[in-house]
Parts: sequence; structure tokens; C-alpha cells
Amino acid sequence: MDSSSRAVDKVLAQIDADLDASIERLFSWLKIPSISTDPAFAKDCRNAAEWLKSDLATLGVEARLSETGGHPVVLGHTKTSGKPHVLFYGHYDVQPVDPLDLWETPPFEPKIATLPDGRKVISARGACDDKGQVMTFIEACRAWKAVTGELPVDVTFLVEGAEEDGSKFLPEWVEANKDELKADMVLVCDTGMWDQNTPMITTGLRGMVYEEVIVRCADRDLHSGLFGGAAANPIHVLSKILADLHDADGRIMIPGFYEGVHETPTQVKEQWKKLNLMPEDFLGQVGLKIPVGEKGRMLIEQIQSRPTCDVNGVIGGYTGVGAKTVIAGQASAKVSFRLVGDQDPQKISDAFKQFVRDRIPADCSVEFIKHKGSRAIQLPYDMPALTAAKTALSEEWGKEAVTLGTGGSIPIVGDFKRTLGLDSLLVGFGLDDDRVHSPNEKYDLKSFHKGTRSWARILGALTR
Amino acid sequence: MDSSSRAVDKVLAQIDADLDASIERLFSWLKIPSISTDPAFAKDCRNAAEWLKSDLATLGVEARLSETGGHPVVLGHTKTSGKPHVLFYGHYDVQPVDPLDLWETPPFEPKIATLPDGRKVISARGACDDKGQVMTFIEACRAWKAVTGELPVDVTFLVEGAEEDGSKFLPEWVEANKDELKADMVLVCDTGMWDQNTPMITTGLRGMVYEEVIVRCADRDLHSGLFGGAAANPIHVLSKILADLHDADGRIMIPGFYEGVHETPTQVKEQWKKLNLMPEDFLGQVGLKIPVGEKGRMLIEQIQSRPTCDVNGVIGGYTGVGAKTVIAGQASAKVSFRLVGDQDPQKISDAFKQFVRDRIPADCSVEFIKHKGSRAIQLPYDMPALTAAKTALSEEWGKEAVTLGTGGSIPIVGDFKRTLGLDSLLVGFGLDDDRVHSPNEKYDLKSFHKGTRSWARILGALTR
Repeated sequence: MDSSSRAVDKVLAQIDADLDASIERLFSWLKIPSISTDPAFAKDCRNAAEWLKSDLATLGVEARLSETGGHPVVLGHTKTSGKPHVLFYGHYDVQPVDPLDLWETPPFEPKIATLPDGRKVISARGACDDKGQVMTFIEACRAWKAVTGELPVDVTFLVEGAEEDGSKFLPEWVEANKDELKADMVLVCDTGMWDQNTPMITTGLRGMVYEEVIVRCADRDLHSGLFGGAAANPIHVLSKILADLHDADGRIMIPGFYEGVHETPTQVKEQWKKLNLMPEDFLGQVGLKIPVGEKGRMLIEQIQSRPTCDVNGVIGGYTGVGAKTVIAGQASAKVSFRLVGDQDPQKISDAFKQFVRDRIPADCSVEFIKHKGSRAIQLPYDMPALTAAKTALSEEWGKEAVTLGTGGSIPIVGDFKRTLGLDSLLVGFGLDDDRVHSPNEKYDLKSFHKGTRSWARILGALTR
Repeated sequence: MDSSSRAVDKVLAQIDADLDASIERLFSWLKIPSISTDPAFAKDCRNAAEWLKSDLATLGVEARLSETGGHPVVLGHTKTSGKPHVLFYGHYDVQPVDPLDLWETPPFEPKIATLPDGRKVISARGACDDKGQVMTFIEACRAWKAVTGELPVDVTFLVEGAEEDGSKFLPEWVEANKDELKADMVLVCDTGMWDQNTPMITTGLRGMVYEEVIVRCADRDLHSGLFGGAAANPIHVLSKILADLHDADGRIMIPGFYEGVHETPTQVKEQWKKLNLMPEDFLGQVGLKIPVGEKGRMLIEQIQSRPTCDVNGVIGGYTGVGAKTVIAGQASAKVSFRLVGDQDPQKISDAFKQFVRDRIPADCSVEFIKHKGSRAIQLPYDMPALTAAKTALSEEWGKEAVTLGTGGSIPIVGDFKRTLGLDSLLVGFGLDDDRVHSPNEKYDLKSFHKGTRSWARILGALTR
């Protein structure tokens, strides 16, 4: 055991000894109803930011509130020491609480509750998302400071107040403050565990292309008795396009679509296989059982490491109650693609448009509305910090940490990469049953306690 | 020339001499705003019915108002004489007049106007649809009565007041009054000419099957970031079904769909061919130019003698402004079929449902809502009354009368066949530019005058 390991042991002991006090600190933050989407809570959001600024001061971190177009960002730095420098990202705002009558205890009166299966949980809005998760990192820092007098790495704290409102002012704020945000990597605590006992590092975020297609045929709605059988029907044209997007094996048929999609290393796939994600479990929770993704791929690949295409909405013609014999003048669909690897959003957008245009009859037309485009994020599997964090997590939980992509996207991670050139290590301790956007949000006490210990280990590991 | 021909000549002369008076009679009827769909005009509808009852009395026809669930039916009979007996059908109600400010002259102040091309027209709501058309028949009867003291055939007059409201009470009224409606055939005056100079007899009405399909996959809306790539998407399932309905040649792919579809006699097709209906004219009026119906069929076949399938509406997922990455729990479409010949609506409904079910994934489901089902109506091309009417029309207009189906359906004609066992001869003098459901409805004076003369000839011809 080297000196750093010995220090970690002391830090972990300090975390255990300080657990009750750390819960009290979290509770005092949870009591502030910092709902970012409702202007009525703007003052509370600022209060939550002030609370954090004061708490960081107790770590010796000089923090300030930095204004944005919306709620302020809490921004603070440890003293620069030349050690590895991490930028920690989290958010102090929370989701609205409606419907309030479904809460078993008031959302802003945090308490420890016991679930039927015996698990102790912290019950409050924001308990998990994201105040509880943010505090696992801060409490780990506090323990290091208490034991060694300093943090093992240099840290910039960036805790925003509008994540639940789409972080809409953050990209420009990051751009404007990029000199002050210099670091070696980003740490994010806003994700989940694989299950109650298996820690997880999110190593990939799928990108997105989101296009709207409007097919126009006749210049007005037609009566099918008069024109039926002769006039082009935009719903037919659109249906054919949408049907052509996938083949019978679930492959996406747009030419060049799979360009930039890489195979996952075999050992990573082996690890995924061991997770044994069963369709009847994953899809069973929403009333399905048969995966429809690419044939020959594991379900766990289909939902996080493979690109997908879904039609998110379609409308055309008469959609009210009863029957109307109309041939519509136009029909439209919203189509989104989840991207992985090095797929180029612009190329895919262009290829999709060509694919659609190739299927538009000569006397019909098509209009496109672009909604979103972002590249996928993929951490290199051999990145040293990833290996270090994985080892630290595995030691804490006694079980190998899973490295897995997420099917969705966390846009700000893309901004960190694009604007700051930084990779983000996403480690979090949320569980599937945390109800993060619903009544009765909770955070397992085990997630909070062992999450704090996990960060303490990771911070120690990053120094090496 | 036989005596009947000589009588017809006198009747035609009488019509010419009485034209101004006949226009005055029509005007007095047109002044009554008998809008059937608006309860505020219920009294006016009754007044229009009373007006007609009184007018029929001047022909020696004892008419009465027969109550229905809605506006009354005007029902009257000539004295039974043992001559051929026709049941005449028309309607005294009219369409609403909104938007009123688009009318060049008030809709219920009929006047004679002159179009830029010199045509004289009667301008008023109902001028064509259907008061003007009904009066062509009544004025023909009046002239026969004036010249010969009687009508050449026995006539039952059935003029309803809710055609523009879907004739919803008429089928049960016909059923309840079927003994009083006994006749040899039905004459209907509610259709149009081929063009300004070419008379037309509508010999076919397409039938209809109208089905709504609801495809259900997951039991709730899903986030495409979490489930995309694995969960069945009902819009994909539905799009595939809708795309499969037609092949690349415009054929409908439902097994057994074309059962009961007969080829039109060659000489009828030759007549249609001579009409020379050009896609750029017919489709050009709505901004299209390329017919999408069955390959190898003339446009004029596609729109009236061939069965069709059109998706009339589709909806699923997010259809608001902007982007939402949802995988919908369900998607639905309204699909209608126009039937011809002996196609069986029930068989087609069943075959369609099977076609859909064959394409529903094992863990998804489908619900059907049936809206309409009716058989096509097709007059035998060798029916003697049809031949007689065709000759009479050709003599009046100096041009061979066209016999053609209509793409749409007139449901009451089906009831006449089903309940009374009677074929309907549909002859009318409307033109494409009559704006029958729009502001500035008109009826060409030529349509009114020569229409009256046409009926006089047809009535004379039916006695032979």
C-alpha cells in the first residue's frame, strides 16, 4: 500500500464518521425549492446557488455566482497547484413537483424513509437529481480536505441552475468563460448505476439528427369521390418513405448511414453480454417483449451502441372523430436518428433528404425543417482516467464497474468537448426506481454514502 | 313522326314560351333560405317544403309533408293510370352560405347574371343544387300537363329536406313508406353534364368501405433515448401497412380485392376514350399532372369505374411544433375504399383487416373501427330506360349523351335499390363551375332551359 492508498483509507473512514452531518448538509440544500422552469421560484434558485457558494467556501473554494440569461451558475476553483485539474459539472435546479397530492411526504421537507424491501432512502425533490449526486462529490472533497488539508486534484466547480429547463443559456456561457474553465477533463455526476450493486461509467452518448418532412401533393384537400384513384395522396407517399427507412432485419436503409459506426471492442461486448439484459425485463416494463432493432445485435447494443431511426410523429388528412373522405394536400412526419461513433450529423441529414427526395413523385414536393443535429460522444476505452475510475469504483462496490453508453444525449457534454476540448467522465449513483422526474423522488442512502466514498477513491486514483 | 313525337314538339314549344314564368317560379322558391344544417333555418325549410307542395298542386298532384326525425319530406303522386311509374327524387334544402362576404349578390336574392364569357346564369344559393335541377323536372311535367292534360307517365314526387345534412333520416323513412313508394324506376336530378355541351347519364356510383385502424405497441409513450432501437414503433408498423396497400403499378394488394370487379364493355370504353380527359386538365386544376392510379387504365377509368384505396388520415406521436423524441404508444389511420361492380363491402372489410393483422408484430395489437360500408351501384348498360333517356338527351343537345359512373357515392340511391328494389336513372345539368357548395352558386340558364326540355323528351320517351 502506498501513501496515497493509506490516505484514501483515512478519507473513507472520515466519510463514514461524517455521514450524519453530510446528510444534514444535503437536507438543508434540499429544503430550497429551486424549480428552474417556474419563474415563481427564481428567488429560490438563487438561494440554492448562494447556499452552494457558502458550502464551497467551507472547503476553501472561492466561488461566485456567474450570471447567465437565466439562473446563475455557481463557479468556483480550488487553488491551482499543478496537480491534475478536473472540471466538475452538476446542477442545483430541480424538476417541478406537480402533481403535489401524489407525494407521500412534502417534496421540500427531506426525510429518511424505509422502502418495503428495507432500503433506507432520502425522500425529497432533488434527492437524486441532482443535489444528492452533486453532494457525493462535494462530500468526497470535504473528506479529503479534512484528512490531508487539500484536495488530491485541482477542481473547478461548475454547478448550473437550468438543467431541467434545457440548459439553454449554458453553451454560450461556456463559450464566454472558456478561459476560466480550463482543465484536463470533466467529471459529471448526473447518471445512474447499472443496478443496486453494480457501478457504471457512462462512456458514450448517442448524437442526434432530427428532421421534419412535409410532403405536398395537390394544392388543396381533395374529395376522394372525385379525385380518388388519380390524385397523388401525400399520406401514401410519406408512408412509403417511412416504411423504406428500415429493412426487415431492422437495418436503416439510407445510403451511407452506417459510415463512421465502429464495432465495440470484443472485451467490452463480453462485459455487456454478462449483464444479461433480457428483452422480457427491459421491454416487459412497457408491455412489449420482442426487440425490433438490428438482427444479430444484443438488446444492450441496440439501445446504446448502435445508431437508430425512429419516426416520432406523423400527421396528415382528417384525424378527428368519424369518417371524412378527403385526400389531403399534405402530410408530415418528424424523424429522428440517434448517432454513434463518428457518424456525421450533416452527412446523415443530407443523405436522409436525398433518400426522401428520391421517393417524391414528379408533381409533388417536399419541405424539410431541421430541428437538431449533434455528434455522438464516445470516450476512448483505453483512456487512463477511465481505467482509474473503473478500478476505484470496482474496489468500492466489490463488483466490476460497467462501462456503457447511454441511448440518450446530454447536450452539455458535447459543448464541453466542442468548446473546451475536454472529455467527460460520467459517474453517478442513481437507480432506475429513483423517480427523478416524478412524485416521491428518492436517493438511496447507500447511493449517497458509497457514492461519496466512490468519488473519494476516484479523486485519489486520478492523482496517480 | 308518331303522335308522341308530335306531342313532344308541342311540349317543347310550351316550355320555350313559358320560360320567363318558369324562372319566376324558381326565383320565388330560391328566396326561401332552406339551410338544413342550421336549426335557425328550420322554419324556412318547412316553408320551402310548403312552397313545393303548393306548386305541385297546380300540376294536379296532391302532395303532403311527411314528417321525419328532421325536416319534412314532400311526397306527392299523380293519379294512377297504369302507365309506367317513376319515382322522382330531389331535395329542397341548400348548403350554408358562409362566408357571406364572398357573395357578389345576396345568396337568397336570385337574379340573372352574365358571366365574362357571355353565359347567362341564375345566381343564388340552391340555383343548381338542387332547387334549379328539381324545377327542370317539374317544369317539364307542367308543360306536358298544359299541352296534353296529363303526364305521359305516373309520377311519385319525393323531395327531401336534409340531403345537405347527410339524409340521415331518409333511409328509415323510405323503409317506413315503401308501400307508398312503389314504382318502376327512380329518376334523380342532382348530377352534372360532362361539359357545357355534352349531356351525361350517371350509370354507376362507387360503393365504399371506410375503416379506421389503431395500432398499439408499448403501453405508454416512450423516450427514444432510452428505448429507441429496441421498442416497436407503431408509426413504423402502420407506415409499412399503408405502404403495402398499393404496388408500384397502383394495384391494390389486398388479397381478393378485385373479386367482383368487371370489365366495362368495349363500346362504353371507346366512348370514354373519345371524351379525351387529359391529366393536365383534370389534375391540373389542383396543381397535379400525373395520375397515380392503376397503370394501363385511362384516367377516366381510374376516377369512376375502377376501385380505389385512399388513406384519408393518419396520426401518431408528437405532431406539435418543434422536436420531441418520443416513441408513441399508438398510431392510427383512416382508410377508405371506393368499390365498383359486385365487390362485397363485408368481404373487403374482412380482407383488409386480415391484411393489417398479418403485419402486426406479435407483441403489438390492432383495433378496428368501422365507419361505412356500401355496395357500388351499376345500371345495366342495356337497360331500356337508359337507352331511351340517352336518345332523348342526344336529340336535345345535338351531341351523344355520355354514360359514365361517378367516383363518389349517393347513398340514398343504394337505399332505393335495397329497400324498393328500384334502379335509379341519374340525369342532371350541373356544370363543374357551378360552385354548388361555395359562395356565388349559379346554374346556367341553358342548363335550366334545356334541362327542362331534356326531361320533357325523356318523359315522352319512357312511355314508349
